[in-house]
Amino acid sequence: MDRRQFLSTSGLGAVGVSSSAFAKSSPRTLTMVTSWPAGFPGLGTSANRVAKRIEAASGGELIVKVFAAGERVGPFEVFDAVAGGQADLYHSADYYQQSKSPAYNFFTAIPFGMTATELAGWLLHGGGHELWDELSAPFNIKPLLCTNTGAQMGGWFNREIRRIEDFDGLRIRMPGLGGTALQKLGAVPVNLAGGEIRGALKDGSLDAAEWVGPWNDLAAGMHEVASHYYYPGFHEPGGSLALGVNLDIWDSLGERLQALLQEVTTAEYIRSLTEFNVQNSAALTVLDEQHGVRPTTFNEEVMRSIAKYADEAVAEIADRNALTRKVFESFNAARADAMRWAVFGEDAFTAARRKHYAG
Amino acid sequence: MDRRQFLSTSGLGAVGVSSSAFAKSSPRTLTMVTSWPAGFPGLGTSANRVAKRIEAASGGELIVKVFAAGERVGPFEVFDAVAGGQADLYHSADYYQQSKSPAYNFFTAIPFGMTATELAGWLLHGGGHELWDELSAPFNIKPLLCTNTGAQMGGWFNREIRRIEDFDGLRIRMPGLGGTALQKLGAVPVNLAGGEIRGALKDGSLDAAEWVGPWNDLAAGMHEVASHYYYPGFHEPGGSLALGVNLDIWDSLGERLQALLQEVTTAEYIRSLTEFNVQNSAALTVLDEQHGVRPTTFNEEVMRSIAKYADEAVAEIADRNALTRKVFESFNAARADAMRWAVFGEDAFTAARRKHYAG
Repeated sequence: MDRRQFLSTSGLGAVGVSSSAFAKSSPRTLTMVTSWPAGFPGLGTSANRVAKRIEAASGGELIVKVFAAGERVGPFEVFDAVAGGQADLYHSADYYQQSKSPAYNFFTAIPFGMTATELAGWLLHGGGHELWDELSAPFNIKPLLCTNTGAQMGGWFNREIRRIEDFDGLRIRMPGLGGTALQKLGAVPVNLAGGEIRGALKDGSLDAAEWVGPWNDLAAGMHEVASHYYYPGFHEPGGSLALGVNLDIWDSLGERLQALLQEVTTAEYIRSLTEFNVQNSAALTVLDEQHGVRPTTFNEEVMRSIAKYADEAVAEIADRNALTRKVFESFNAARADAMRWAVFGEDAFTAARRKHYAG
Repeated sequence: MDRRQFLSTSGLGAVGVSSSAFAKSSPRTLTMVTSWPAGFPGLGTSANRVAKRIEAASGGELIVKVFAAGERVGPFEVFDAVAGGQADLYHSADYYQQSKSPAYNFFTAIPFGMTATELAGWLLHGGGHELWDELSAPFNIKPLLCTNTGAQMGGWFNREIRRIEDFDGLRIRMPGLGGTALQKLGAVPVNLAGGEIRGALKDGSLDAAEWVGPWNDLAAGMHEVASHYYYPGFHEPGGSLALGVNLDIWDSLGERLQALLQEVTTAEYIRSLTEFNVQNSAALTVLDEQHGVRPTTFNEEVMRSIAKYADEAVAEIADRNALTRKVFESFNAARADAMRWAVFGEDAFTAARRKHYAG
């Protein structure tokens, strides 16, 4: 069913008009296209949970039909499909749209950027969401902050990284600005879909790859094809995913259903983030106890270089256009604010706790 | 209007029955009693926001009337009022109910316990909420995870704390298990409502006091009556607040409105947490630049002692009854899991970022 057909058959307000002040219209079906395989842990499951919760909280007034990547459109075509009205909603990572504007990076993940809660602070209370709305409106999209993967890992490597020179010619799968930073260090970023990574690491056409974190990496069997598991995930400290809504559909929902969608997606942010954290911890135990995987950290010299080139990569995109510059400056100010409080707040607490329980 | 009267006048389903499958009943008013002064930053404002969002997402089907502390019942009487049906909802900290069961501490804050996101992980994905439901059902309450203050500060002191001996005879306002831990170190916990703290610090009847964090502490003028601002807030790493629902009211709402309340309160968790973080950072700047306040950290020896006695205080309450023991064990397992992942995930990232941006 395409959008035109949907609009003509949903008959908003045409059926079952009630005498009550709170009568609802008949059920309305929205289609959601996603960038994930069906049931993909954390991402596909989050999209499905959002759909179910919208149905539950609306008492079935809104029915959301979820399509896995490729079922209606390809994983990277979901934004255009919703912009053009071939689907009503997408669940995806907005940095896949960086060819439309590099500003989209800031709404998914920036190397050395913000953690999941810091990013939500910027979006909900620091003017970030208004900038995101401004960026997306010309594409006929209303973005909603939805899912977050939490901190990720630095990736699986088949080469030890002890000095910057070890990045020379390293063929690595790392999308986005993290990949650009490593390219400046001599690495060769390779673009591969998730399903192709394992094979490429196994046959040696890839030397390293970041995927998501322990939960997804264990499920994908990365430990069977790579020798070193590096941390931290400097490139994606809290990967944020959007529920994008076709703007005409958004306007047609009215204030009540708009508010309902905002509640469900905002609730999903903490549901998904904490699910990733809980599952990542369990997966780390399995990786350790059953497969002998002990994550390795990048040393300080290497981290310093990565950080320097990451800053460069981010600053370069800010030069591309005025809106990206505005987003860049707003993001940087929010990060500085977040770091100021973290020093006395959560970072100080977790450091003291770690010291205590480590003995 | 008391609950009996409310039930007889709300006339569920008696008015305006619609021919639509999605007809709603007439508007229904719920009363919410809170433990906070009207408009109290972060806490009172969160209660009011929850009320507004419930109204918005239900299109006015549910109207929530919020009462500040003292307007209907006192700040510590809200639980009993909702349990007994004199009000429908409360917004409060469940550790105020520790005289009913010490297990309630685990659902608000435990010294050296869990951060806001870690606590949500336990509640939403680690069996925590089921235990909370089990604890509250005999009191005729359905608890909903709602607001979180984020990390707090260690408190305002008019005495420097360099050695454990400095706690001797220190009259400190610190409720809950944090106070019990300091009592074991020789301090004298004093029970005072928020509004009385400032005066007591000023006239010397109190030597130290924890309140919330920079946002609330600045507003209360603590910097005018105390010389040292200590961190981290070891006693409340992520103070969690509940929306408690009278169980009969909860059952009467039906699945759709129950789901709607769950969406709004879960969304409020990340809205409030990030609002505290953003406002705390801004307040720190004001405290620094306008009032010359530079927070001081407890030294390692002092922290080690506090942690040891905090563990003791927590272990003691676990001995009181079987359900508290079960909650204690579930909480501890979740904390260990959270710490395992944090080492490689968010803690490792924020440490690397701090090092980079500090030069």
